[in-house]
Amino acid sequence: MFTCGKDRVKDKIESFAKFGDTGKGGITRFSLSPEAIAARKEFIKRMEALGIQTVTDDMANMYATAPGTDSSLPRIVLASHLDSVRNGGNYDGILGVITALEVVETIVRDKIPHRHPITAMVWTNEEGSLYPPAMMSSGVICKKFEKATVLKSKSVEGKTFGEALEASGFAGSESNRLNPQDYCAMLELHIEQGPIMEAEKKQIGVVDGVLGMFNYRISAYGQSDHAGTTPMSFRRDALLAAADAIKYIHTELDKLAKDIVYTTGEIVLHPNVHTVIPDFVEFSLDVRHWDPAILEKALEVVKNIPKEIDKCEIKYKEAWSRKRVSFKPELVDLVEKNAKELGYSYMRIHSGPGHDAQYVADLLPTTMIFVPSKDGHSHCEEEFTSVEEAWQGINVALNTIIDIDKQ
Amino acid sequence: MFTCGKDRVKDKIESFAKFGDTGKGGITRFSLSPEAIAARKEFIKRMEALGIQTVTDDMANMYATAPGTDSSLPRIVLASHLDSVRNGGNYDGILGVITALEVVETIVRDKIPHRHPITAMVWTNEEGSLYPPAMMSSGVICKKFEKATVLKSKSVEGKTFGEALEASGFAGSESNRLNPQDYCAMLELHIEQGPIMEAEKKQIGVVDGVLGMFNYRISAYGQSDHAGTTPMSFRRDALLAAADAIKYIHTELDKLAKDIVYTTGEIVLHPNVHTVIPDFVEFSLDVRHWDPAILEKALEVVKNIPKEIDKCEIKYKEAWSRKRVSFKPELVDLVEKNAKELGYSYMRIHSGPGHDAQYVADLLPTTMIFVPSKDGHSHCEEEFTSVEEAWQGINVALNTIIDIDKQ
Repeated sequence: MFTCGKDRVKDKIESFAKFGDTGKGGITRFSLSPEAIAARKEFIKRMEALGIQTVTDDMANMYATAPGTDSSLPRIVLASHLDSVRNGGNYDGILGVITALEVVETIVRDKIPHRHPITAMVWTNEEGSLYPPAMMSSGVICKKFEKATVLKSKSVEGKTFGEALEASGFAGSESNRLNPQDYCAMLELHIEQGPIMEAEKKQIGVVDGVLGMFNYRISAYGQSDHAGTTPMSFRRDALLAAADAIKYIHTELDKLAKDIVYTTGEIVLHPNVHTVIPDFVEFSLDVRHWDPAILEKALEVVKNIPKEIDKCEIKYKEAWSRKRVSFKPELVDLVEKNAKELGYSYMRIHSGPGHDAQYVADLLPTTMIFVPSKDGHSHCEEEFTSVEEAWQGINVALNTIIDIDKQ
Repeated sequence: MFTCGKDRVKDKIESFAKFGDTGKGGITRFSLSPEAIAARKEFIKRMEALGIQTVTDDMANMYATAPGTDSSLPRIVLASHLDSVRNGGNYDGILGVITALEVVETIVRDKIPHRHPITAMVWTNEEGSLYPPAMMSSGVICKKFEKATVLKSKSVEGKTFGEALEASGFAGSESNRLNPQDYCAMLELHIEQGPIMEAEKKQIGVVDGVLGMFNYRISAYGQSDHAGTTPMSFRRDALLAAADAIKYIHTELDKLAKDIVYTTGEIVLHPNVHTVIPDFVEFSLDVRHWDPAILEKALEVVKNIPKEIDKCEIKYKEAWSRKRVSFKPELVDLVEKNAKELGYSYMRIHSGPGHDAQYVADLLPTTMIFVPSKDGHSHCEEEFTSVEEAWQGINVALNTIIDIDKQ
């Protein structure tokens, strides 16, 4: 079995943590910001040190390819993103970029024989923090979004993504885009962003796909009246209706499956004044599960929500949804085989959050590796994965790449 | 029985509706704004037409006194306010000012014999829309607030109430303030702001006092995690805890009294993102009742709220509270006697909202008269009381003043 350099992994984590350092243990590194550009330059510098040039495509995605013994073969790509949310951590995304850098570095330095060219790649704007949507560039390249549309995406300061792309100097040729002729497989290592692996005491998550999901907006329409004058029996209190609707959703969805996850994370209340009975509430409902049949039943729960609760009219509408994505079974099996052979504890796991890999799965054979997130935290400065855990994940990535190379 | 002029009431309602007219059936007339000053000038002009001069005190409260036959007797005062909330209606407050104007006008024009001087009064800044708190001037004069503190009250634009008072030209002498030596009784007519009288088909509300109340903030502390990755059994969802806390409050408070009113009108959720489990909720709880023993029990319900709901810590704190205010029983009885003798349907009623009269009740014998609010609406452009209903209320006020004069 091959292994990469643990000290080098530590060095890479620490080096990239400087770009956008908040001084409180985390980073703010929006895509194409000065902080993200500094991180991009670090990527380029580290690849140049191995004699590898970096090219970009028209969405500023970066590709650094180590040649194999047979240049006619398609490339194997390791990819993730280096942008973050506001006050994010030092692991989400960047650990996949570090994996790509470290796997390529190990293969080059240790002269590990391989036939296919091997590419370390960085996706632009996975988080969509400044310019929505999330997974913007993989979405464009995998035909989920129109490029012309995302170029117009505006930050709160009114700058467009197109302007930021132009100004960055990282926009390259469309011909450099990831594509199924020049590339034969993609692997993405990511932190789990959840507490399951830690609870199960597993070192490697063998990700078999991404959960299907739907996101709905549920609203209650009541009547706004004075808190001091309206007898309880006259009231149509939209917040009480929302409380009952939330209880209904919990009761009904809990019946469907032990492993269904659903969240009412956002609420809008009107007029939101302590002396006025609320006349309008809207809240979000995000539901995720691996089995489309369970998701279908969950949708029925939403559609069977009583039309009237506490004398308030209840309405619902879809905000967005996605179908389940299954990763390439042969690649998933290879990840599992290598975790096993390296002597690491492992488990099959579905990804709850979305990743660039879920779009790429439509383009190329794709899979992912998860490493544990301490306390399940992500998108926050407390995000943490130990150097040991990261190194184990990267070792699985390295051996999986070499196995793919043999096929 | 004496009656006032129905056409004059209609004219007064229509005249004052012009000052701050939103063009959509209501008004925005913040205290001491140009619109409110125009309304003040209308008040002064109408009193001058009867040969009555208007003076102001140091809080810009206005007093216009019609002499009686015995100038050594203390004055009887009719008072309300002419300021409004944003997009308020043409009845809240201003109908009490119109009552004062019309009662004085009727007494003067019809030469109704009376011994005491009779004063029409306007309170400054009852709503506190631009400069909190509400009932600012009655609060200062009745020693509920420090004048020096309220002068510093700032509008959102950063102007202080003190500056607005100075600029208005309406600040007069502190010696003109309402006081228990120079005044013997106060009467305020107001719209009900609730649906009870309409539902009970009553024309006159004989107000016996203002409900006691408390306002608490209840909060739930959970854990913020990713919506897609955190199994339900691991979650500490603060919004779910809030929904259960709201249900608990409804279940427990409903047991206490049929006529208790309580409202959870305001909610703050953090981080309020549809893909993140909420880690913090705070909501308001406003509870009102006539009986201090019931309010005491309601407070026990709040204090007995489980310390932990849905694995979230629950906390509560008082925002503010007020004790019940009882109006002068002899005056309440006089209002009832006159409603009955005028042949109007009437009912005893408690005021849920606060009014300047509740502070004045500590200073002078005080009471209030309610007239119906269509559909119970107030603090909105839909506010409506018919000319007939207003006129009936003013007739009760007129006869009550004459009765007080006899005592």
